Amino acid sequence: MNDSEYMALALAEAQKGVGRTSPNPPVGCVIVRDGEVVGRGFHPKAGEAHAEVFALREAGERARGATAYVTLEPCSHFGRTPPCADALIAAGVARVVVAAGDPNPQVNGRGLQKLRAAGITVETGVLETEAEAQQAGFRSLVTRGRPHVVYKYAMTLDGKVAALNEGNGPVSGPEARARVMAWRNECDAIAVGARTALLDDPQLNVRGLEGGRDPRPVLFDPEGHVPPTARAIREGTVLVLREGRAAPLEGDPRVTVLRAHSLPHALEQLAGLGISTLLLEGGPTLASAFFEAGLIDELRVFVAPKLLGAGLSPLLSPVRSMHAAQGLAVRSVDVLGNDVLIVADGRWQKAEGESSYTDSA
Amino acid sequence: MNDSEYMALALAEAQKGVGRTSPNPPVGCVIVRDGEVVGRGFHPKAGEAHAEVFALREAGERARGATAYVTLEPCSHFGRTPPCADALIAAGVARVVVAAGDPNPQVNGRGLQKLRAAGITVETGVLETEAEAQQAGFRSLVTRGRPHVVYKYAMTLDGKVAALNEGNGPVSGPEARARVMAWRNECDAIAVGARTALLDDPQLNVRGLEGGRDPRPVLFDPEGHVPPTARAIREGTVLVLREGRAAPLEGDPRVTVLRAHSLPHALEQLAGLGISTLLLEGGPTLASAFFEAGLIDELRVFVAPKLLGAGLSPLLSPVRSMHAAQGLAVRSVDVLGNDVLIVADGRWQKAEGESSYTDSA
Repeated sequence: MNDSEYMALALAEAQKGVGRTSPNPPVGCVIVRDGEVVGRGFHPKAGEAHAEVFALREAGERARGATAYVTLEPCSHFGRTPPCADALIAAGVARVVVAAGDPNPQVNGRGLQKLRAAGITVETGVLETEAEAQQAGFRSLVTRGRPHVVYKYAMTLDGKVAALNEGNGPVSGPEARARVMAWRNECDAIAVGARTALLDDPQLNVRGLEGGRDPRPVLFDPEGHVPPTARAIREGTVLVLREGRAAPLEGDPRVTVLRAHSLPHALEQLAGLGISTLLLEGGPTLASAFFEAGLIDELRVFVAPKLLGAGLSPLLSPVRSMHAAQGLAVRSVDVLGNDVLIVADGRWQKAEGESSYTDSA
Repeated sequence: MNDSEYMALALAEAQKGVGRTSPNPPVGCVIVRDGEVVGRGFHPKAGEAHAEVFALREAGERARGATAYVTLEPCSHFGRTPPCADALIAAGVARVVVAAGDPNPQVNGRGLQKLRAAGITVETGVLETEAEAQQAGFRSLVTRGRPHVVYKYAMTLDGKVAALNEGNGPVSGPEARARVMAWRNECDAIAVGARTALLDDPQLNVRGLEGGRDPRPVLFDPEGHVPPTARAIREGTVLVLREGRAAPLEGDPRVTVLRAHSLPHALEQLAGLGISTLLLEGGPTLASAFFEAGLIDELRVFVAPKLLGAGLSPLLSPVRSMHAAQGLAVRSVDVLGNDVLIVADGRWQKAEGESSYTDSA
């Protein structure tokens, strides 16, 4: 096995913590000695030990002279736990391979410096893109003070997410819906607009996935229309009101109420709650407000092989020319059952004129 | 090499004739003796020799005891050329492998019977799906009396084929546009509606492809609005008018004028002109009329990684429910440059109530 293959194991370790570690990043570590994996670990939850600590604990004396593969630069500062760089040095590790640097200003290269100063061989950038994608929420929190926002939708081959005014069956098939459950399990929060909350009354939970845990529902409900009976109301639900508004839900002890004058303001407050990844699930009105404000970081689009002929589009924003269309970078294309999944990264600039929160419901 | 691999060579031979042979099918033949390809041939054009004849000619005496791979059942009847089954028998071929049967009522198994009766080993169904797709136009003409209709469009990741009212750049990238030129080169005719002919004034020709030849433009122009100055008017252009209408283009010696009371009636007449494959290139109004009449056989959809926010949809038909959405079978998913190409086969029933030709422009 080469460095990339061992790093892939470390990323698989990290994956076990995705959605559980915020505001910390998911991190995985694998320790290899003479071609044998002698220790594995991942960061399970903020406040608990880091990945390196678990891996070193398993490796014990075999860590001496070994190579450690870590998906994120080892920390160099005392946080809730002592610095991992120190632990690697103390264990006598000979070489450390790192996927991505830690953008946290308290680390940001200092972890690597510390290791090198102790005579450890350090290599970086192995599976960096994959690691950065896995850590997107953490990196967004640290560098931009807001969550990483993913707009997920399923559309027909003629670009419709729902029929206009008749009964709506699901657009995509069971494999696609299972994938959505996996995403819900991995994100910190799911956002829907008031219209979706009122019309569809979604549960926004994880179903049919062993070991799954529910993300926090975030209801963008500027005017305070969502009733306490909504199925998405549970311990941890966040209600985002326009500034100065009152809502029937305010007395509910399960609900955290935020007031925002704009979407960026709302996202800043969600970051303050430790929400690092936000999955936009509906509807087009809310997504369009995010789109107009340049706040969609990633798209996950299922294209279902059916033709509807007329219906609701994924975005409802004002007309632009094709020249002004926002360009994306395709990250992956996969076939799931009968559906095609396209994942793309946003790379746009902020649109002229910040969208008012007024538009979003 | 196994039978499938030799048949793939025969399909590649046949491919050279695609778009040149109507109303005949494109057919390829490869003759193999002791693992060596000793003859190749394809049908270049209606009225010229069939694929088997070219391959046998090249093989000469080496055809004796050899295996012939043919993409379509050899013909058993005297058409413009003598029966190919007889030629294979006379050449002393020992084994014939066939991809797809010939649905032509004059053949339809008789070619295979003739070969077997002469003591030749016959196998069928090798790469049948691929061969049937390559022969889709011919098969549609023979079995349904109308062309195989392909709707091709390029849409953004939010399902838009054009901006509504500003300057429109291309939706997809250069690789996708080059693929469209290859398709134009392979189809018998390209259809556009009057609106597209008037607003975009497309040339509907093949550009940037060595050895390419232009398909026949078919203008669905029920009211006769398209002027003689339109760039798509050339030798072979077909104008489809509503019954009883006159048009300024009628005097033009380059133009064939048809009059139709419905889309099926129009397609029947196009078949009569030997048009076996019809590529729908625009716009949504024409495509929607075909869709409503259940006349779209295949979709080729480029999904470009951009977001427009608002714009024109690929189809503009009346609202249906998602349950009633027309299901398709995905045939292939490919990445071309930055775009995703999804090819799907229609498998719908005719919609209730035949769409009137009135709707199509």
